[in-house]
Amino acid sequence: MDLKVYLKEKIALVDAALEQYLPKEEERPQSLHKAMRYSIFAGGKRVRPVLMLAACEAVGGQIDKAMPAACAMEMIHTYSLIHDDLPAMDDDDFRRGRPTNHKVFGEAIAILAGDGLLTEAFKLMSDPRFAAGIDPAARLGVIHEIATCAGTYGMVGGQVVDMESEGKPDMDLPTVQYIHAHKTGALIKASVVAGALLGGADDKQLAAIRRYGEAAGLAFQIADDILDIEGTTEEIGKDAGSDEARGKATYPAVMGLAAAKQEAQAMMDEAMLALEPLGAAAEPLRAIARYIVERKN
Amino acid sequence: MDLKVYLKEKIALVDAALEQYLPKEEERPQSLHKAMRYSIFAGGKRVRPVLMLAACEAVGGQIDKAMPAACAMEMIHTYSLIHDDLPAMDDDDFRRGRPTNHKVFGEAIAILAGDGLLTEAFKLMSDPRFAAGIDPAARLGVIHEIATCAGTYGMVGGQVVDMESEGKPDMDLPTVQYIHAHKTGALIKASVVAGALLGGADDKQLAAIRRYGEAAGLAFQIADDILDIEGTTEEIGKDAGSDEARGKATYPAVMGLAAAKQEAQAMMDEAMLALEPLGAAAEPLRAIARYIVERKN
Repeated sequence: MDLKVYLKEKIALVDAALEQYLPKEEERPQSLHKAMRYSIFAGGKRVRPVLMLAACEAVGGQIDKAMPAACAMEMIHTYSLIHDDLPAMDDDDFRRGRPTNHKVFGEAIAILAGDGLLTEAFKLMSDPRFAAGIDPAARLGVIHEIATCAGTYGMVGGQVVDMESEGKPDMDLPTVQYIHAHKTGALIKASVVAGALLGGADDKQLAAIRRYGEAAGLAFQIADDILDIEGTTEEIGKDAGSDEARGKATYPAVMGLAAAKQEAQAMMDEAMLALEPLGAAAEPLRAIARYIVERKN
Repeated sequence: MDLKVYLKEKIALVDAALEQYLPKEEERPQSLHKAMRYSIFAGGKRVRPVLMLAACEAVGGQIDKAMPAACAMEMIHTYSLIHDDLPAMDDDDFRRGRPTNHKVFGEAIAILAGDGLLTEAFKLMSDPRFAAGIDPAARLGVIHEIATCAGTYGMVGGQVVDMESEGKPDMDLPTVQYIHAHKTGALIKASVVAGALLGGADDKQLAAIRRYGEAAGLAFQIADDILDIEGTTEEIGKDAGSDEARGKATYPAVMGLAAAKQEAQAMMDEAMLALEPLGAAAEPLRAIARYIVERKN
């Protein structure tokens, strides 16, 4: 398969759906909706929604059933970036080469734009307009999976431990593993699990997808850590080497660059193995995992 | 009925359920869970959860069916207070006579505690452990109603317009109405609508409850505006007269104190009228509405 073509097609579908689902800029309060759209349409790679659609297809489902949840996932990812960038958190002025939300709209609106995106995500996943042909119990399962992985036992928890570990001299592997599994891995896993649930997966398929999600999620974050060291500022759209400068908890920091690369590869192998029972339908999920680990930005 | 006894009993049930549902302090990340619990157990009056339970009973439902959503509503209300108090927003040092969340735990944890509470709320409402005996479609309806009323077309939207109106000389009644209906009214309405849905309300009952919620929500906020003028700092647990000092958009500010009192009364009359079809089962809802408008703190 041609991943470039696949991604381009799926990203276009996701972007069109986001355009449709998000509050319009002309609707009140305009400043808020403008700020929400600014960060949603800031050149994100749509990794999570595309993974959700690919997982839905991998179990034989129709992607339109997963589209609202896929866009909800992108809203949750985007809210987390807006809040992470705030002065009280990572204090970042740029993201993907553009000024961060609070630099453009001010801190108060940035906080509320994040709150708004998070809330709209759950509104979208429970919207009765998109209920046709989906088991209500599966929709509730998706909401529960995503809320679990986005909350204090998932992404928010990971962000707290990440923040509290920053600059500490005694950083250890279990802490880095906790941070990566929670801060990034959880939403990756939730994306594919949600896609499988909405695609009508049976228990065996769901277990395979879950195992894939856990391994790919970790591979994704280790690759990100490596990119921060090896990429240029132009390639990654933020200051290269910023993790090290901040004393961030990363895989290369605790195990060295070579071992981190090995670990990323091992996780990718694990992800590939998990997909075996799904056969050819899982080809996009395989290609995405490879792309994630080999990407340059 | 004795409202004091009713409230005491219901608040105790809500507090016990919150204690059970919230992440434990000893669970990782401890700082986050401590911060979430600090604000949840900060002496809130539990108006929204009690309203949800009362609405559930008013349509003949069992309150245990509504308890997870009632606690979720309190988490959403609490997250909104934590974020509203932040330096970038209202910059409040005290709430209910205690230091605000960010004064105790720092801004970063306060932002994340709010994010965590909002996310946990949706996790709780979709938790399969509390699915027994409730139509999954009704659970989805509750999540959608609450997300709608908490998001950019509800509370978050109201907060933005409130913030942007602050100190403006040309404050008008439609703007104040928008702010009140969205910032406070929406969650009050969502509370009773959710209670009715989880109590198995029919269409007629649901319409009555919705109408009650809209009127009572507005009455609640006007009463709050009046209290800010007439209450003492001791009674209301924050600086009396702070709305006026900040040039906040309030009913007394745009129509005068006497007219605002009349409006609160008119809204209460409307709320009472709406409840007529529900008979004696709605007595707690009536008593709560009266209490809301006549309360001194």
